Amino acid sequence: MESAIPLHLETPRTRHKRVPDDYQPPYPSFVARYKPSVNRVVMAYFGLQYRGTAAAAATDALAEIAARFAAEGGPSHWDRAQYVDQAGYENVVSVAYWDDIARFDKWFASAREAWTGAQPEGIGTFIEVLRPTVARHETLFSSLGRPEGVAAISGGMSGEVQEHAYWGGMRDRIPLSQTGPMSPGGNPELIRDGARLRVKAHDNLCLIRSGQDWSDTETSERKLYLDDVEPVLREGMDFLRDDGLGIGCYANRYMRVLAAGGDASEKSYGQSWWKSLAALERWAESHPSHVRIFGAAMKYLSTLGPSAKLRLYHEVTVAAADEQFFEYLNCHAKTGMLAAVETVAA
Amino acid sequence: MESAIPLHLETPRTRHKRVPDDYQPPYPSFVARYKPSVNRVVMAYFGLQYRGTAAAAATDALAEIAARFAAEGGPSHWDRAQYVDQAGYENVVSVAYWDDIARFDKWFASAREAWTGAQPEGIGTFIEVLRPTVARHETLFSSLGRPEGVAAISGGMSGEVQEHAYWGGMRDRIPLSQTGPMSPGGNPELIRDGARLRVKAHDNLCLIRSGQDWSDTETSERKLYLDDVEPVLREGMDFLRDDGLGIGCYANRYMRVLAAGGDASEKSYGQSWWKSLAALERWAESHPSHVRIFGAAMKYLSTLGPSAKLRLYHEVTVAAADEQFFEYLNCHAKTGMLAAVETVAA
Repeated sequence: MESAIPLHLETPRTRHKRVPDDYQPPYPSFVARYKPSVNRVVMAYFGLQYRGTAAAAATDALAEIAARFAAEGGPSHWDRAQYVDQAGYENVVSVAYWDDIARFDKWFASAREAWTGAQPEGIGTFIEVLRPTVARHETLFSSLGRPEGVAAISGGMSGEVQEHAYWGGMRDRIPLSQTGPMSPGGNPELIRDGARLRVKAHDNLCLIRSGQDWSDTETSERKLYLDDVEPVLREGMDFLRDDGLGIGCYANRYMRVLAAGGDASEKSYGQSWWKSLAALERWAESHPSHVRIFGAAMKYLSTLGPSAKLRLYHEVTVAAADEQFFEYLNCHAKTGMLAAVETVAA
Repeated sequence: MESAIPLHLETPRTRHKRVPDDYQPPYPSFVARYKPSVNRVVMAYFGLQYRGTAAAAATDALAEIAARFAAEGGPSHWDRAQYVDQAGYENVVSVAYWDDIARFDKWFASAREAWTGAQPEGIGTFIEVLRPTVARHETLFSSLGRPEGVAAISGGMSGEVQEHAYWGGMRDRIPLSQTGPMSPGGNPELIRDGARLRVKAHDNLCLIRSGQDWSDTETSERKLYLDDVEPVLREGMDFLRDDGLGIGCYANRYMRVLAAGGDASEKSYGQSWWKSLAALERWAESHPSHVRIFGAAMKYLSTLGPSAKLRLYHEVTVAAADEQFFEYLNCHAKTGMLAAVETVAA
């Protein structure tokens, strides 16, 4: 049993973790382990928004960003996911990960210009970037052997960690929780730059990417996931998307991961922006929409036990104000962090 | 909005509470308020255990302890509850509350001798007492106007308190949580004193009395409680009674409160002894048996909203080693804290 907080990020505590030192989680979980030399990571979401009539232009844009990812200075890992949003637009989000901030900065300038500088008629684009220090970040995996998201660039996974399977484990896994409450500072503001809209959020904004992979499940387990768990998960994701603002969720996307050829894979993830880690904690712990998800997942896992083939993971970041970048071009007003600021109508 | 921790028990914190200072609970709850002069309270459970054949002797014993309660030095409040335990015995528990330790001590010596000194054939008796400082204790009520348990001697109730409706609220309401983890110290030990068996538990043993009162509910709400909530609650209570030891629950009684005349009232409560507050927290937050209770209660309350007439309350104490007393006479080995020690067979 090891701590989710890596040794080199342990600091003298001014804040206690939520469980006693002899706490034993009831089942194993694992976290991504970066090399100690990695101080920051970058997670950059490149979104594309369109309706069917602009499908050809969308395909071109997706091919172009993929080519940029493959070029000099590009990410160590990226993946792509798709969803239809609350306004009926098709969205494709390509998320890319770097563990070298200098390499990202050099790569990013021209990529940004190409992605949100100008796009053909009917195409909206956005860029949402966090570049947190690793002390502001945590991951959790239900099983080994298939890293997802930022963990794909970490180079390794932990053994069984202690800080999970209790409410508060997410916070306790973030190294900064040893010394700080990570309280939010201020409200998101809109900045107009011609056609581009930028959102300046605030200190300790929180991002979660929370995913599930049912590709290894067979017959009865697959049926249980698709019939009993997924609909409850979708309902919770829809709640966050449509009514999350009142509880501190600025935006939520529940997306299907696309395989290399562009077809839907048997993986999905929710990506949401939160006013604070505390707001995310409160929703997860006590809101009916997540209590139902938790109940369904619990029933699923207790039915299947260790034989469950469903893979679950998440990554959570609490970003400092200067670790964030949000930019939108020709997107509707409910897109990402635009939903968090006053109406963007001119 | 006020803190559950009364002003005169606020101390400089070395441990943080689990929610930010601007946390707003989603619905109101209230706590018992003692006069600042009250430093300790006493909660004394006098149990009677028998089978049908000893019913007449049981009636006599119950009348006798009631007479003692009514005499000089007796409790400020007491109530009585009944259940059939896992060994098929009828149990009646009379619980009495004092806010003056000297008065209790003076009263207790002869009452103890009468209750667990000797009893007729077929009658088992037990006494379980905590006498905590008020800093080791918290209460929570869903509504005003009908104090139960220890709150009945407090003399008053708070306004709406902040520390509730999140996991960790129970701990945050206990004043001692400002400075200490309340970790358990050691294992329960059996002490034989002739026919009397005493259990010496350990520092920071935890007691919860958690009750529900459906006497004010009408038709559809009553049906919802009795059909959808109570069976799930009972299942969880049975789990704790039969299989709680593995998760740190030494004993649990799920009892029906008796009205003054001895008939069953429309109130019940669960009373359980725990290795630690942390063990109680873990069960409440993540064990399937309580997650189901929580889910059922949540569905009930969200269906009814503020019009719900069901009343809920609990009281939780984390007692120091010298604030406890457990004594059993002619009880079976699964009775109360006897279940926490090695077999008591001679």
